[in-house]
Amino acid sequence: MEIITSRGNARLKHLCKLIDDKDYRYTCGEYVVEGRRALSACSGVKALYLRAGVIAPMVGCDSIFFVEEKLFATIAPTENSQGILAIVPLRISGPDAIKKTARYVFLDHLKDPGNAGTIIRSACAFGIDGVIVTPGCVDPFSPKVVRSSAGMVSSIEIIRIDNLSSLDSCFVLALAAGGQDVRTVSWPAWFVLAVGSEDQGVAPELRGRAQVVVGIPMQKSAESINAAVAAGIALFAAYGT
Amino acid sequence: MEIITSRGNARLKHLCKLIDDKDYRYTCGEYVVEGRRALSACSGVKALYLRAGVIAPMVGCDSIFFVEEKLFATIAPTENSQGILAIVPLRISGPDAIKKTARYVFLDHLKDPGNAGTIIRSACAFGIDGVIVTPGCVDPFSPKVVRSSAGMVSSIEIIRIDNLSSLDSCFVLALAAGGQDVRTVSWPAWFVLAVGSEDQGVAPELRGRAQVVVGIPMQKSAESINAAVAAGIALFAAYGT
Repeated sequence: MEIITSRGNARLKHLCKLIDDKDYRYTCGEYVVEGRRALSACSGVKALYLRAGVIAPMVGCDSIFFVEEKLFATIAPTENSQGILAIVPLRISGPDAIKKTARYVFLDHLKDPGNAGTIIRSACAFGIDGVIVTPGCVDPFSPKVVRSSAGMVSSIEIIRIDNLSSLDSCFVLALAAGGQDVRTVSWPAWFVLAVGSEDQGVAPELRGRAQVVVGIPMQKSAESINAAVAAGIALFAAYGT
Repeated sequence: MEIITSRGNARLKHLCKLIDDKDYRYTCGEYVVEGRRALSACSGVKALYLRAGVIAPMVGCDSIFFVEEKLFATIAPTENSQGILAIVPLRISGPDAIKKTARYVFLDHLKDPGNAGTIIRSACAFGIDGVIVTPGCVDPFSPKVVRSSAGMVSSIEIIRIDNLSSLDSCFVLALAAGGQDVRTVSWPAWFVLAVGSEDQGVAPELRGRAQVVVGIPMQKSAESINAAVAAGIALFAAYGT
């Protein structure tokens, strides 16, 4: 068993660059997941990097590398790492992948990685088929998003679009303050639910494009709720309908 | 106008210790909020610390101090700070404050500050009267919780209890996998909704104590959703009932 002990190791450099560099992730078609739980949601694991001493998780992967303990601590994205990093295939579709008979969440300029990952996790829980992103959205394959999604980003189709015309054939609902009470919305079988950024909300163009604006009633004294909580409430309202 | 330029300044030391040290917060009965939005939810602001050049927010406070720009950057908890920190009174009640005719969220050993703050924010939005915590829970007045709550921690009663007997006269609902579908639960007028930690869920003793275990149905392929999203869905289900 070989243990990697140097930051200069070519494999380790590749791993670190996948963690830190968005463009490199897309060029290589690979990204990094961390921890047993996230890993269990992945298929096609390409390589496993384990902290020396850690028992290898049961995944079908022959490329297993051990990294010296202190060195591993310097590369792991989290402080209390389980000592497991895996390189997995990055799969992203273009606008042609959008189907009329499917349910999507659209992350409209969402910047907060924790919110984006949490929404992806909720989407998987509530029967959503895919997550649509634009170039202005946080990268769904960045370590913080992957972690917040509990690795579910591997279990759902991610689609990147460049402009809203890709949604022309879709029924769009925009989640925004002042919209129709989410409890009374008639959800169509197939839809795109657009969630806006924490600061700006859904962009005016997208809001104007939406067939329905969905709102979540709340106390007048409260200004707003977290974007991922709002999305979770709306997705749950649609679930089972 | 005096500008603080040294880390050794006694006022600045006090501010930093309130940010970093939980015990000191409780000893002084003060904590720190950051940013205009969070500040707008606060009353009784004791002192304002502004980055030199920042326009003072409109709050009734005569103790305003300016901090040299680079020095401010080293003390602000967030990277892209608005340049506004405020010392506000820390108000926390004991178990005697629990009323029979009120709605509470109980954070049971919740460790993640982002989740705790997000739940406090949802609680304010959905008409909850107070948040109950135990010593094993993340401190609701820590900077990350305050930020995730969008400052709403100042707008809701926080109650600390040491053991579950303080809930003896309450109707307790525990949020946990496998519980009764949240859509069919008959919410009583007054209740305590217990939310467990992301890893462990609601503690067995508390789950056993609950009159109702509330669950959120989801796809079998999905293991779980984020704790703050789950709490938001349950609180919204109770809202307006």
